[in-house]
Amino acid sequence: MVATLDNHGKHQVVIIGGGFGGLYTAKHLAKANVNVTLIDKRNFHLFQPLLYQVATGTLSPADISSPLRAVFSKSKNTQVLLGEVNDIDPKAQQVIMGDKAIPYDTLIIATGVNHSYFGKDNWKDLAPGLKTVEDAIEMRRRIFSAFEAAEKETDPEKRRALLTFVIVGGGPTGVELAGAIAELAYKTLKEDFRNINTSEAKILLLQGADRVLPHISPDLSEVAAKSLEKLGVIIQTNTRVTNIENNIVTFKQGDEVTAIASKTILWAAGVQGSAMAKVLAERTGVQCDRSGRVIVEPDLTIKGYQNIFVVGDLGNFSHQDGNPLPGVAPVAKQQGEYVAKLIQKRLQGQTLPAFHYNHVGSLAMIGQNLAIVDLGFLKLTGFLAWVFWLIVHIYFLIEFDTKLLVVFQWAWNYITRNRRSRLITGREAYVEAKTVNNITQIAN
Amino acid sequence: MVATLDNHGKHQVVIIGGGFGGLYTAKHLAKANVNVTLIDKRNFHLFQPLLYQVATGTLSPADISSPLRAVFSKSKNTQVLLGEVNDIDPKAQQVIMGDKAIPYDTLIIATGVNHSYFGKDNWKDLAPGLKTVEDAIEMRRRIFSAFEAAEKETDPEKRRALLTFVIVGGGPTGVELAGAIAELAYKTLKEDFRNINTSEAKILLLQGADRVLPHISPDLSEVAAKSLEKLGVIIQTNTRVTNIENNIVTFKQGDEVTAIASKTILWAAGVQGSAMAKVLAERTGVQCDRSGRVIVEPDLTIKGYQNIFVVGDLGNFSHQDGNPLPGVAPVAKQQGEYVAKLIQKRLQGQTLPAFHYNHVGSLAMIGQNLAIVDLGFLKLTGFLAWVFWLIVHIYFLIEFDTKLLVVFQWAWNYITRNRRSRLITGREAYVEAKTVNNITQIAN
Repeated sequence: MVATLDNHGKHQVVIIGGGFGGLYTAKHLAKANVNVTLIDKRNFHLFQPLLYQVATGTLSPADISSPLRAVFSKSKNTQVLLGEVNDIDPKAQQVIMGDKAIPYDTLIIATGVNHSYFGKDNWKDLAPGLKTVEDAIEMRRRIFSAFEAAEKETDPEKRRALLTFVIVGGGPTGVELAGAIAELAYKTLKEDFRNINTSEAKILLLQGADRVLPHISPDLSEVAAKSLEKLGVIIQTNTRVTNIENNIVTFKQGDEVTAIASKTILWAAGVQGSAMAKVLAERTGVQCDRSGRVIVEPDLTIKGYQNIFVVGDLGNFSHQDGNPLPGVAPVAKQQGEYVAKLIQKRLQGQTLPAFHYNHVGSLAMIGQNLAIVDLGFLKLTGFLAWVFWLIVHIYFLIEFDTKLLVVFQWAWNYITRNRRSRLITGREAYVEAKTVNNITQIAN
Repeated sequence: MVATLDNHGKHQVVIIGGGFGGLYTAKHLAKANVNVTLIDKRNFHLFQPLLYQVATGTLSPADISSPLRAVFSKSKNTQVLLGEVNDIDPKAQQVIMGDKAIPYDTLIIATGVNHSYFGKDNWKDLAPGLKTVEDAIEMRRRIFSAFEAAEKETDPEKRRALLTFVIVGGGPTGVELAGAIAELAYKTLKEDFRNINTSEAKILLLQGADRVLPHISPDLSEVAAKSLEKLGVIIQTNTRVTNIENNIVTFKQGDEVTAIASKTILWAAGVQGSAMAKVLAERTGVQCDRSGRVIVEPDLTIKGYQNIFVVGDLGNFSHQDGNPLPGVAPVAKQQGEYVAKLIQKRLQGQTLPAFHYNHVGSLAMIGQNLAIVDLGFLKLTGFLAWVFWLIVHIYFLIEFDTKLLVVFQWAWNYITRNRRSRLITGREAYVEAKTVNNITQIAN
């Protein structure tokens, strides 16, 4: 029995990508008189802004994920397809998955961005980034394994390298990672080891721009920097990484070149458009920017194709103030809503004015009790900002999947200063354990 | 700075394995005048009885894990070592890890058991078992990927194989897995797919003995079987698997041989002693039983070695009623406590009577509102047993790490019938997605 979707000649909307952009588009089409096919490589939507909390052992992957089928369980006009899109045929109005073609009347591309290593792709394994659940688990493995290896290391120089954490990139992810690792080393893990003093860990945040969190106002950015430094993070602004190899990171600040031995180098710098941008450029001639993001029209379509939209991080929308909108969840969310509305208007023979991003503010978490909130009219720092940050994130999380548990989790972690999710798992879960060092000395 | 443990000539206790046996031994030595070194390959203790809930998408790995360092954070006489023991030198009283040796005065081996495929080791990949976090995530991946692949499959025969789940082994793990998969297919996922009816899934539980849960009383075992059948599980007792290949499982009941196509075959049958048993046998001449478990003396030492103990699943203790004690957490826990006490008695020049297992009862979870409790003097089934099961497991969970969250999690899942942790992750997270089937048919 194959219960194929009965389309009754309905308008076919195909959405590629179940991130914020794709998800909100589909959500706002759930009651429209269209058929929606949402295609994703993964069976869950990932709340990426909290991925750093998985990487640092506070939350589990499932805490920040919503199974896509569960989200659309009751949206009977929506089907979720697990798979990878290889190609697009704009003439035939088809999306190609392997040897199968899925027809569309309207196509929404929301495949987001990947890390950019600025052409140094061999840095990828040496300094992993943070985009997927697997990335987060790998980062978690590296961070906690470094402490474990340091506990067994008797060579002071090697131990220093094991206890040196370098984070490349001073945007929200870099700042949040640095803050969380500082809290780990200087608070959470302090009593857990017998041979090392985790307070001797060195956490270095390297930022290319002249300040951390350049997207928020300079005064709040300074508060963030001060708070990080108070936590123990060493910040280097105007700094470019020039080389990464053999667990040595080399960087340049002005004319000064420094090389530091570090076993844990984490990447939170540049992004580049996902592969779908190239496919789209080839098939439609649309232009991409230097980061490989698709230049979109004021209504989020692409030039020459009224029925192809690009939403979220993958799009470069520069019609508001000349600068591309930032790659953040609120932009993707508002774009998804806009496109869903526009599709429905069009079906009624109407249209909508150009997309306009309604900036709601910027948030960054630095540590427990420490956050930065910039709403333009209101700026918060410290505990109040932290509470605000929590409320906003909980609000977003429960929109799809009533994850009140995350609230309890946070409350609990807050009270106990605990990081229960610090499992070292995966393929190489105990590789380090095999390269045991001078243990007799420890045990005697 | 290497802060080596200052032993002041203290008695050195080395424990291999951080499961229930090792953990309880160490816990009960925390205040003793000895130095304890707990060695484990992993950085966390795993609450294995709940692993099937990770495999079926209810809990996250971290929900049932306690970081070993956190457990012993305040036990200043205890150090946790992450690593793998390769050898034991009973003459020199040393444990060998790589090229390092750790001296002991008393050694406790608590490395547990692995799966046994009864010599058919090639079945391992075809029918994975459930012992580690990685096992559970792999099982979860297979279960949920099977539904995803079925959604895309148009060939009715292939679809049937994708929706057929075979569980080999009718002990607690097999029963719990079968019950959980039945609830998934017939309840949780019912509304989530568009092209398949998940209620058409077939869940087969193959049991070698003449009834499921042979360790509990026959009447309760029958209640369990009836409850499973009511959930939709097909039980075949007196059934032996004779072959597994190409997603076809062949089994024999009496003279009747059946072959069934199934894409998801799960192994919950035999166990065999971990590698350490062989090492121990070679080095000390101790005897092992047919399952490779170490035959222990009445005081849990091994023959000829008063200072080497084997606790938990790895030991075969048959001094109580002639039969080996079952490989369950309460046995390991009581043995750990006993050994910790005995060590302290010995340091005072005293000793203890032989170990005696105090049977507290048997529990098995079948589904929501459905469990089996056999306390000997009290037998419970249905909802009451389910509540009892919850209370007992919560009690054990919070003993190390106040995981009240798991309670909320369960309560929440119970109310919402949700399985939020059904992420398909890992290396081959979306391999299935690439073998896309006739999608045009679906989308049109």
